[in-house]
Amino acid sequence: MRMSELSATTGTPVPTLKFYLREGLLPAGERTSPNQSQYDETHVARVRLVRALLDVGGLTVAQASAVVSALDDDSVPLSTTFGIAQRAVTQPAPPATSEANGAARIAELCASRDWAVYPNNPGLTMAARVIDTYSALGVDVITEAALERYAQAADLVAAADLEAVASAHDEAQMTNVVVVGTVLGDALFAGLRRIAQEAESFRRFPLPEGTPAPGDLTDHKDC
Amino acid sequence: MRMSELSATTGTPVPTLKFYLREGLLPAGERTSPNQSQYDETHVARVRLVRALLDVGGLTVAQASAVVSALDDDSVPLSTTFGIAQRAVTQPAPPATSEANGAARIAELCASRDWAVYPNNPGLTMAARVIDTYSALGVDVITEAALERYAQAADLVAAADLEAVASAHDEAQMTNVVVVGTVLGDALFAGLRRIAQEAESFRRFPLPEGTPAPGDLTDHKDC
Repeated sequence: MRMSELSATTGTPVPTLKFYLREGLLPAGERTSPNQSQYDETHVARVRLVRALLDVGGLTVAQASAVVSALDDDSVPLSTTFGIAQRAVTQPAPPATSEANGAARIAELCASRDWAVYPNNPGLTMAARVIDTYSALGVDVITEAALERYAQAADLVAAADLEAVASAHDEAQMTNVVVVGTVLGDALFAGLRRIAQEAESFRRFPLPEGTPAPGDLTDHKDC
Repeated sequence: MRMSELSATTGTPVPTLKFYLREGLLPAGERTSPNQSQYDETHVARVRLVRALLDVGGLTVAQASAVVSALDDDSVPLSTTFGIAQRAVTQPAPPATSEANGAARIAELCASRDWAVYPNNPGLTMAARVIDTYSALGVDVITEAALERYAQAADLVAAADLEAVASAHDEAQMTNVVVVGTVLGDALFAGLRRIAQEAESFRRFPLPEGTPAPGDLTDHKDC
């Protein structure tokens, strides 16, 4: 198909497709004349993936590019694909200050939960830096109990994630699930967390007298 | 204190502080001469918060600015602060296509979990769009069981989040916890999810013979 058809099929404007080509997010088509190239179903799939990463996953172009490269690299064994996808979509955390104890708390947590990972797992620094940041802000709410609940939640989600990987038909699909799931899973969880938070906040902190409750309005349906 | 001291205390370069002032992220100091202003502890706290939102939370300047405005607005009752913070840090989701069923699945999930929220909760669209995106990519891994586990995890985390809000000393601190926690909680969970995923992937997909396991190396400590 021509670029105009690729555009129509994926609902993506031609200038955007040209941008993807320039940025290496979309492989070049097969050139059939000096001004024309042919594209196929693999290009359709790639455009959909790139739009998912940018529009739904909220990645930057540079992050999406790193994810796409990980997908295209067949030499990577599946067991390390998670790490590559994770690092591609995790922005580097700022260095810890001397009085920070986030890293120590995360190390303890890993030991207590039997989480064995390589020390370059980007989640280690990411989680540690969040704890340090709370301390620096004087908001000391990451109690042992809170951290324990977040960790239980992470285990639940990780089990679902790996279940999804195991259910894929073949190795290529598995890699796809790992890479897509790393990005989209963050967004799915963040969405559900926002719903659960609001539901829980209405339970704990009743609305002022006279304020319409979420379920009480005809124009406000129950979710 | 002068701007140079504010810089030293917070470890933030003076040009960065000037940028924060221009962008409305930091309120102006008290002008003591045409070329000099005085800053106090509230400015120190605000600089730390802004850096947390940008560096650890990964927000854009525009998002951080919206969060800071929500914090400064005393007229907002606590029970709606979550919504404001959530909307400030959630990027708008693309519209659903006609064949999409994500919204229906999320509505069912809300009903089954007794999650009552207003229909403008940004998590509803965010989560629905992730499900639609998986479908569009032909990666149908969000089974009922997977969605159920994500939802359980969201409830665990939301309970911890609201516990933290309830434990704050006063209303100002509560608002602070809500706003900071909305941003940092996403990052904390994403970090722990990356650790749990890797740990779980080693359990399910053993490394090829001869590859050093995470716990087997002296230079690779157990997390």
